[in-house]
Amino acid sequence: MSAAHSGPLPSVNRQFQLAARPAGFPKESDFSLIDAPMAAPSEGQVLVKSKYWSVDPYMRGRITGVRTYADPVNIGDVMQGAAVGQVVESKAAGLAPGDFVMGGWGWQEYATADAKSLRKLDPNLAPVSTALGVLGMPGMTAYFGFLDICKPQPGETVLVSGAAGAVGSLVGQIAKIQGCRVIGIAGTDDKVQWMTRDLGFDAAFNYKSVSDYSEKLKELCPNGIDCYFDNVGGAITDAVFPRMNTYGRVSICGQISQYNLEKPEPGPRLLTHILVKQLKVEGFIVFRFQNRYAEGIQQMAHWLREGRIKYREEVVEGFENMVKAFIGMLRGDNTGKMVVKA
Amino acid sequence: MSAAHSGPLPSVNRQFQLAARPAGFPKESDFSLIDAPMAAPSEGQVLVKSKYWSVDPYMRGRITGVRTYADPVNIGDVMQGAAVGQVVESKAAGLAPGDFVMGGWGWQEYATADAKSLRKLDPNLAPVSTALGVLGMPGMTAYFGFLDICKPQPGETVLVSGAAGAVGSLVGQIAKIQGCRVIGIAGTDDKVQWMTRDLGFDAAFNYKSVSDYSEKLKELCPNGIDCYFDNVGGAITDAVFPRMNTYGRVSICGQISQYNLEKPEPGPRLLTHILVKQLKVEGFIVFRFQNRYAEGIQQMAHWLREGRIKYREEVVEGFENMVKAFIGMLRGDNTGKMVVKA
Repeated sequence: MSAAHSGPLPSVNRQFQLAARPAGFPKESDFSLIDAPMAAPSEGQVLVKSKYWSVDPYMRGRITGVRTYADPVNIGDVMQGAAVGQVVESKAAGLAPGDFVMGGWGWQEYATADAKSLRKLDPNLAPVSTALGVLGMPGMTAYFGFLDICKPQPGETVLVSGAAGAVGSLVGQIAKIQGCRVIGIAGTDDKVQWMTRDLGFDAAFNYKSVSDYSEKLKELCPNGIDCYFDNVGGAITDAVFPRMNTYGRVSICGQISQYNLEKPEPGPRLLTHILVKQLKVEGFIVFRFQNRYAEGIQQMAHWLREGRIKYREEVVEGFENMVKAFIGMLRGDNTGKMVVKA
Repeated sequence: MSAAHSGPLPSVNRQFQLAARPAGFPKESDFSLIDAPMAAPSEGQVLVKSKYWSVDPYMRGRITGVRTYADPVNIGDVMQGAAVGQVVESKAAGLAPGDFVMGGWGWQEYATADAKSLRKLDPNLAPVSTALGVLGMPGMTAYFGFLDICKPQPGETVLVSGAAGAVGSLVGQIAKIQGCRVIGIAGTDDKVQWMTRDLGFDAAFNYKSVSDYSEKLKELCPNGIDCYFDNVGGAITDAVFPRMNTYGRVSICGQISQYNLEKPEPGPRLLTHILVKQLKVEGFIVFRFQNRYAEGIQQMAHWLREGRIKYREEVVEGFENMVKAFIGMLRGDNTGKMVVKA
C-alpha cells in the first residue's frame, strides 16, 4: 500500500503564495507559506498529494506582473509550476488512488485537479521525477527548441550557454547524437567536468574564471559557431554573435542573466552581426510544440534507455525549502535539473 | 547610331579610387579621381562606356577594410559597384557595339569586362537605369528579402524602416500587393507624402520630427507589428521590437544608422523580446537568392507594367559627382533610388 493513501489527510494544505513582486533578485520574503483549507475533489477531479515540485528559470518571468505568453502570478496567488504527485482520492475515470500524475498545480502540498489536466505516469518506465525534467518540459524544450530551430548538421559546431542546467545539458547531448562538435558554457568547474567527463561534450568552460569570453570562444571554436542555443543572454551572448558562422542559427531559449536586473542593462548591438552573417535568430516558448510532445517524449525515453542521454537531478528535500531552491536555481546552484522533494 | 560608338575614344579612363578608409562618415577626400589608361578588350571581353552608376548603402561596408561577405575595397582600388553602360567595342559573341549591359565594373567611365559577367538589357522593356533599381539588386533585395524572410500574410501589419529608399519603397508596395497594412518610416516630410500619396502606404512618419518612436508606433500600429523590414537599425529598431506581435518576423536588410559611427554605440538588449514574442529575426545578403533572380525580375517587371509598383530615381548628373552622390545617399538625400548619370 502506497504512502499516498495511508493515514488520514492533514487538515490544512500548505501553499506558497506570491507575497510581493521581486525588485531584482527574488528574496524569501517575496513568498509566504500559508495554511489553506484542504479541498475535496469534484466530479471529474482528483485530490493529489505532491511528491516533487519543479523550479525553473521561466518562473522568474511569471512573477514580474507583466503578461508575457502566460498570465502572471499575482500577489496572493499560489505560485505556479509543474509538479508530480500521487492520487489520494479520485472522482475521475481512469485515475485511481496511488496513481502517479504530473500537472501544473503549483507550489502546494495537495491539489484538486481536473483529471484531464493531468498526465498519468508509469513509475516502471522511469523515475516519476523525470516528468519534470528529461521526460517533461525541460526535455521537450531541449528536443524541439534545439532540433527544430537550430536544425543542426553533422560536423557543425554547437555552442550551449547555461549548458549544465536542466535544458542545456540535454541540448548538448542531443547535439552529440546529431554528430556535432559541442561546447558548453557554465558557471562552476564541477559543471564543466560533468559536461566533458560524463556527458560527452567536446569542450566546456567556466565563464566565471574566464576574463575574455571572445578569446576563449576563438580557442574552443576555431571553425566558428554554427548553432548557438542560448539560455543566458548578456555578456556571454554578446561575445558569441561575432563568432557565428554565415547562415548560423541561434535558438533563444532563455535570458537568465537579464531576469533579475533592477533595470535593463544596455549591450552591444547585435543586428549587424545578424545581417552580415545572415543569421537566423529565433525565440521560442516550448508550448508551441505541445501537439508534438508525444514524439519528443518517446524519442528522449528511447535515448535514455540506450544510455545516450544522461540526466542529473539536484534534489532539495522538504516543501518548506521551495523558495530557497528557486533562488538557488536562479543563482546557478544546480547541476542538471533542480527539483524539490516532499 | 548611338553616341556610345560615335567619335574617338578618350585617351584616359577616369576612375574613382579609394584613397583612405573613412573614419566615421565618409568625406570627399576618402576618394581620388584619377586618370587611368584606357584598356582594350581581350578575347571574350567588351569595352563598355558607363551610362549610370549605382550608389548603395552596402558600399559603406565595403570600404571599412573588414571582410564581410565580400572582399573589401582596398586603398588604391577602383571603388566597387553596379553600373549600366553601352558596349563600345566587342570581342565577345552575343554582344555588339550599342548594346546596353549591366555589370559590376565600379566607379569608372570605361571598363573592359568579361561578357559572361554582364547582363544584357533590353532598352525597350524598361529604362536601362532600372537595372540598378527596381529591376536590379535593390528590387531583388526587396522581393526576396521581404517575401522569403517575412512570409507576410494578408491583413498583417508590416513596418518598413528606410521606407522611402530604393529597397524600402519597393518592400512597402510589395506588402500592399500581399494585402498587408503597411507603415513606413523615413526622414523627411516629402518622403512621407510620397509613400502615403503615391505609393499606397497606409501610414508613414518622419522620424526626425517625432520624439517618441514608441508612442508613434503604438498609434500607427494599434494591432502590433507582424513583419518588420529593417534598413536602419539603431534607436528606431529599438522601439520596434517591443511592439512586435507573437510569431513576428524581422528581416534585417540594412543597419545604415550604424555604418558611419566612429565607435559602436550600445543599445537596449533585444533578445528578451525575441524570446518572449517568439520572433524570427533573420539577416540576409541578396546574393543568396541569385539563382532565383529570373523569377524576381519577371515578377517585378510584371507589377511595374500593371502599375502596381512605382519607382522613383534621384538622378545626379556627372561622373565627377559620384562621391557627393554616395555621401548624400548615406545621409538620406534620396527619395527612391539614387543613380549617377554620365
